[in-house]
Amino acid sequence: MSVTLKSPGAGEVQFAGLSQRSRWAADQAISFLMQQGVENPGVISLAAGLVDESSLPADLLRETAAELLQEPAMARSALQYGTTQGRLDLRNQLVGYLAEQEGVPREELGVDSTRLVVTTGSQQLLSILCETLLDPGDICIVGAPTYFVFLGCLAGVGAEAVSVPLDANGMQPERLEAALTRLQSEGRLERVKLIYVVSEFDNPSGASLSAERRRAVLDIAEKWSIHQPLLVLEDAAYRDLRYAGTPRPSLLFEDKSRERVIYTQTFSKSLSPGLRVGFGVLPRSLQKAVLDRKGNEDFGSANFPQAIVARLLRNGTFRGHVERVRGAYREKLSAMLSAAERHFSDLPGVAWGRPQGGLYVWMSLPETIDTGFDSPLFQTAVKEFGVMYVPGELCFAPDARATNHMRLSFGVQTPEGIAAGMERLAGAVAKTL
Amino acid sequence: MSVTLKSPGAGEVQFAGLSQRSRWAADQAISFLMQQGVENPGVISLAAGLVDESSLPADLLRETAAELLQEPAMARSALQYGTTQGRLDLRNQLVGYLAEQEGVPREELGVDSTRLVVTTGSQQLLSILCETLLDPGDICIVGAPTYFVFLGCLAGVGAEAVSVPLDANGMQPERLEAALTRLQSEGRLERVKLIYVVSEFDNPSGASLSAERRRAVLDIAEKWSIHQPLLVLEDAAYRDLRYAGTPRPSLLFEDKSRERVIYTQTFSKSLSPGLRVGFGVLPRSLQKAVLDRKGNEDFGSANFPQAIVARLLRNGTFRGHVERVRGAYREKLSAMLSAAERHFSDLPGVAWGRPQGGLYVWMSLPETIDTGFDSPLFQTAVKEFGVMYVPGELCFAPDARATNHMRLSFGVQTPEGIAAGMERLAGAVAKTL
Repeated sequence: MSVTLKSPGAGEVQFAGLSQRSRWAADQAISFLMQQGVENPGVISLAAGLVDESSLPADLLRETAAELLQEPAMARSALQYGTTQGRLDLRNQLVGYLAEQEGVPREELGVDSTRLVVTTGSQQLLSILCETLLDPGDICIVGAPTYFVFLGCLAGVGAEAVSVPLDANGMQPERLEAALTRLQSEGRLERVKLIYVVSEFDNPSGASLSAERRRAVLDIAEKWSIHQPLLVLEDAAYRDLRYAGTPRPSLLFEDKSRERVIYTQTFSKSLSPGLRVGFGVLPRSLQKAVLDRKGNEDFGSANFPQAIVARLLRNGTFRGHVERVRGAYREKLSAMLSAAERHFSDLPGVAWGRPQGGLYVWMSLPETIDTGFDSPLFQTAVKEFGVMYVPGELCFAPDARATNHMRLSFGVQTPEGIAAGMERLAGAVAKTL
Repeated sequence: MSVTLKSPGAGEVQFAGLSQRSRWAADQAISFLMQQGVENPGVISLAAGLVDESSLPADLLRETAAELLQEPAMARSALQYGTTQGRLDLRNQLVGYLAEQEGVPREELGVDSTRLVVTTGSQQLLSILCETLLDPGDICIVGAPTYFVFLGCLAGVGAEAVSVPLDANGMQPERLEAALTRLQSEGRLERVKLIYVVSEFDNPSGASLSAERRRAVLDIAEKWSIHQPLLVLEDAAYRDLRYAGTPRPSLLFEDKSRERVIYTQTFSKSLSPGLRVGFGVLPRSLQKAVLDRKGNEDFGSANFPQAIVARLLRNGTFRGHVERVRGAYREKLSAMLSAAERHFSDLPGVAWGRPQGGLYVWMSLPETIDTGFDSPLFQTAVKEFGVMYVPGELCFAPDARATNHMRLSFGVQTPEGIAAGMERLAGAVAKTL
């Protein structure tokens, strides 16, 4: 088994005249990890955040694309430039889709199509928001752990991430309150612009923010809006992927003002990452800034995939598709949790989460066990046992770095592959313990 | 005829806590213009940089998409996440495509697939390069006039654009030399990082850089690389759209080091903007920084459109398609130049370019005639005569602002529409003169 274990960026000659921001943005792990997933097919990867291949709706998309391109007016519109904000037909469908998720009629959503923006995955909106809101030295509050690519975006604009611990119900409001109190006492409250929350099936922890905590986070954001509005960035990338439990209203919907929360969601997980269609709901006060920025970045995400998604929402086929996807992932999550029970229960000091959705299980080892790329465990896991995971340390901001966790993805492998991968991983962990 | 003539951003309440960069990025015209084009279908738009609708290959793309999605392995790969750098099959095809454009065998191109990056149109690469190279106060040399969205990118990172006049053969080397001499005497040479050149059928001037000037620009960049390498950003967005004359090697190819030039090109004009597939060739010294940045922005452009373009290049259908497109645009350019001759020849002080390709004709009026959004001419043209153009002032950096030009696009309208639009425009100009 041949594995490339090069640390990101090692050994490359760089241009001397890079911008400050470029130096800040250096060495983010996402590209490295995706590359690893692509390059090492022999290893069972519990690392890649890719989606289940058998869930990819090739037939549905083929028929939908063909249908679209057979209608001359629609074909012209789908293949032409769109607008920076995104296709109006898609934004209209998204309003209905959001209302359905909130469990209210469209008229009661309090959001119309003018508030939406379509982006290249939800990632682009996360990146654009960092650009439009954060100056170097500004502060964004994040979970510990949190989505590591977002940490890269913060680093890339020179912003500081201040961590607030999560538990099984997501970000802890009393710890959030404590962090803001401390920042105030340090005279840094005016630098706090944003609270970043992955509201459903967090990447990496798997935790969802409980209903009470959603209201608590909003109340805290309002209470601490002393120097300027403290906004909440709600990342609902995994919202469609609920396999158990009851859906909850988003923070966006809980915020009656509709001005406190920036909401992002994507079809990359529930439909196809190859289309890269994500969207956001913006406070009115941010619309112009976000669209100005997106105008400079690409003046509009690819229009053709947007037209496809609009049609799938309109004709209802998305709904059926996502039901099938949930069924497949439900089985995979169950396979991972069973295998964890089977292979890790007897290992001392090993614990893991039991999410109700998403793509990830978060596993914690004794604090003495380092899980990093260069650790004995990672090397043993990849080279000797043939299994790969995401080192948990990538998912912590510098103020809360912990090195004894692993993010395990059940998205890509079959249930059998998951079971085999977990057994291999348990072997590597047992050997390292 | 109902026309919305709101200036960009007028009357909107903005969030008080925007980043400095967001304030720099404000009020770029691209979104406004695209919106205008979409919202005012009754007006003959010679403004929109959209492409010819009848050139959009709906049938070809339908068949290609269907073919791709019928092959299970290809469907999985096209609908899954790709890599930040872009699909390898596409990058491999692009090497061959570049070699064909340079008129050399692939082996002699001096560029392989590792040097390429696939982006959301070439626009995204322009934006990323500004991010990775330019700190606030850094300088980029541009043409006067130049591509206005690029000016927005420069403004968005707080960089300064220093203008060098163009003529019918593109940027004037002696004026470039003079600008650098002046910057050196001002002690600002070390802030000059980049020379931005639209090498073929410039947007907006229509000019192409002559072969001698290509070498001259490269020599000047090398000569003035005193404090750090002075790079050349070659925007070849319109390279495929040559309707007359002989193709020339790019600056990229003229640069034997392959380290001086960053090259960008796109399939938005020659194939379909709805796919938004562009690409770049990067100096090795910039690869890591550009990919780090793109990793934060979107960790990869939509994969499905990339797979479509790869196939069209591989099976040769792109070549036939682009030949047909050139035929259609050749006719439109001719319609615009004939109409200009017919309706503007007798108007005193009016002059225009005669490009051999691209999508734009640049027209200059007497210096006393203002062409801006709020000018009597623009208002008269839109409201009374029912025709729209892009005010030339948008295409100048602040150090070279001129208000008496118009960018006229022949991309969207039929030859008849172009003739009618030009007649209307001549009416508006005559009335204003």
